[in-house]
Amino acid sequence: MALPLCVGVARLLSHDRRLAGGHGACPRLRGVDLDLSRDAAALTAALVDVPSVSGDEQVLADAIAGALAELPHLTVRRDGNAVVARTGLGRPQRVILAGHLDTVPVAGNLPSRTEGDLLYGCGSCDMKSGVAVQLRLAGQLAEPSRDVTYVFYDGEEVEAERNGLLRLSRNAPELLVGDLAVLLEPTGGLIEGGCQGTMRADVTARGMRAHSARWWRGHNAIHGAGAILDVLRSYRPREPEVDGLTYHEGLNAVGISGAVAGNVIPDECVVTVNYRFAPDRTVDQAAEHVRAVFGGFEVEITDAAPGARPGLTNPAAAGLLTAVGGMPRAKFGWTDVARFAILGVPAVNYGPGDPEVAHSVGEHVPLAQIAECEAKLRAWLTA
Amino acid sequence: MALPLCVGVARLLSHDRRLAGGHGACPRLRGVDLDLSRDAAALTAALVDVPSVSGDEQVLADAIAGALAELPHLTVRRDGNAVVARTGLGRPQRVILAGHLDTVPVAGNLPSRTEGDLLYGCGSCDMKSGVAVQLRLAGQLAEPSRDVTYVFYDGEEVEAERNGLLRLSRNAPELLVGDLAVLLEPTGGLIEGGCQGTMRADVTARGMRAHSARWWRGHNAIHGAGAILDVLRSYRPREPEVDGLTYHEGLNAVGISGAVAGNVIPDECVVTVNYRFAPDRTVDQAAEHVRAVFGGFEVEITDAAPGARPGLTNPAAAGLLTAVGGMPRAKFGWTDVARFAILGVPAVNYGPGDPEVAHSVGEHVPLAQIAECEAKLRAWLTA
Repeated sequence: MALPLCVGVARLLSHDRRLAGGHGACPRLRGVDLDLSRDAAALTAALVDVPSVSGDEQVLADAIAGALAELPHLTVRRDGNAVVARTGLGRPQRVILAGHLDTVPVAGNLPSRTEGDLLYGCGSCDMKSGVAVQLRLAGQLAEPSRDVTYVFYDGEEVEAERNGLLRLSRNAPELLVGDLAVLLEPTGGLIEGGCQGTMRADVTARGMRAHSARWWRGHNAIHGAGAILDVLRSYRPREPEVDGLTYHEGLNAVGISGAVAGNVIPDECVVTVNYRFAPDRTVDQAAEHVRAVFGGFEVEITDAAPGARPGLTNPAAAGLLTAVGGMPRAKFGWTDVARFAILGVPAVNYGPGDPEVAHSVGEHVPLAQIAECEAKLRAWLTA
Repeated sequence: MALPLCVGVARLLSHDRRLAGGHGACPRLRGVDLDLSRDAAALTAALVDVPSVSGDEQVLADAIAGALAELPHLTVRRDGNAVVARTGLGRPQRVILAGHLDTVPVAGNLPSRTEGDLLYGCGSCDMKSGVAVQLRLAGQLAEPSRDVTYVFYDGEEVEAERNGLLRLSRNAPELLVGDLAVLLEPTGGLIEGGCQGTMRADVTARGMRAHSARWWRGHNAIHGAGAILDVLRSYRPREPEVDGLTYHEGLNAVGISGAVAGNVIPDECVVTVNYRFAPDRTVDQAAEHVRAVFGGFEVEITDAAPGARPGLTNPAAAGLLTAVGGMPRAKFGWTDVARFAILGVPAVNYGPGDPEVAHSVGEHVPLAQIAECEAKLRAWLTA
């Protein structure tokens, strides 16, 4: 994803060397200047035009680190392709504004383009418009009413082990201390509280092999797995209210496999189920539920991540709720708010863009939502 | 599967060159002498001790071609690793005795060993004991009461395209003309008539993708496939009588698959079913049945082989039935009798060994059954 232009290399190089110890020979470097004085819409377009598919965030991280290092009211730290910039005003509250730099793979949807009041392009919605808002606030608010930590990180769209926020929480947990975190993921301009937990389990039906020409000598595990599907088909998920928000659980097959050969009655069939559970249940409680639902079958929990309670009852959230207005809603998908929850920091999602168009080829963001998000967060941070 | 001994190379080489045009440099050749005057049990052991896993039949084919070429009452033809030897006495009937040379992979069960009245070893049951009977009869019956075609072929244990009988039927169909074929596959010494047909079909349930956190926006194809499994679980197979033998059909899942990703409601689930159908149904009728059973789902027939009627009502079979005695039974598995049926030659299975132990590590054959099979076929061919 090398960029065609090579502007500002010399200036960025100096930052790179200071911040990250330099990173190699010149032909691999591409520099980009970010002008934080441009409006958030123009800044979003500039960010979208720096491709940053997961694993390829360095050029964008360099540009952001470079732009922030110019600002005397911020202390900038770098960890891989994550950048953390903090005010240090000694305010009684510290809040975190966080956003990821990476995108899903480009799908012919670069460079950015504006049509009417919509900005199109890979990452426009998820979530470079949110990153643009972070950068605008970082650039403008030299003396916010609360201390602010701006976190820009890599590897959010891929497996957890590559997640830059997870890496930061291991390498420099002190940078993630705060009273409230706002993830600027696309929420359509509404506050989304908490997130549901997710758990995967393999539910296995066993049988006995036989030649399919003499099938009656065996026991067909796939036919036996019909009873597992019966459970799923008749399952009625909970819709509990947690801290005032209504969640919507789900228990679904996301995979099924069973086969020995085309002429063999199979002796094993595995149904992989995904349980999405409201944040009033712990991982252990979720596992207990899944085991109970599939009583009589082998159940192996293969993967789990806890949910996060909405955090809206936290005093630090009150000012945000006032500034943003509207009715907060529950977040069903698992997001990095859960990582903050694990660190003991209440967190919510709030950002421009419709989450439904994230990851689509036609991804876009309404320009007005970017401006509105910036204005409301500025109101909160200056109140 | 090179043999440790290298006996009779010079003699076999001359046959090889004559029969197959030679096959390369000396280090790749191994020769084996077969003594057709030894009793069938000893001959079976000698055959078992020449490994001939599918694809590696050449040494054994060379040995058989060499031994048969010594017999003045037979005309020997070679096609790859298939060997066909025929009498040419001008008898009013011609019968075919056929057997395959290859085995499933060796599983630590070579060399052969005799324990009590059982001979153990890879291929002892399926079907070198049958091949030994063929060779004994070929060696001894210079003037049988019917003309006899002895067919030894390769590639029976693997996919159809490698089957030596299929290749022979394309390259030299005139060698497979006859009034009745006996395949010396293990049947426990009973005549097994005909075989069931087999058909594979993919039955597909469709759905609509969605993120599993917002599963209600999609439609789960795996859950939908539960209805396919319902059909299979409640299916009552036919047990029709065909030409006096009772068959036992079956409709079974032999594979199932469906998955997009661990967090996606899948939009497709494919159940692979195997229909084993009695020989009173054609392939077309079987396909029609499968489509009707799974009405409402997409059904794609991916593979089919017709069954073969028992052929026992054929006049040529009368003498065989008399000589063997006992009650013939239906063959449920698909065998190469169906290939003969396609060529217009009625065919039955009849050979020593319990088909249930075929392909097992502990594969074995009762020595008495080898001798009995030889005696009964000799009685038939000399009556």
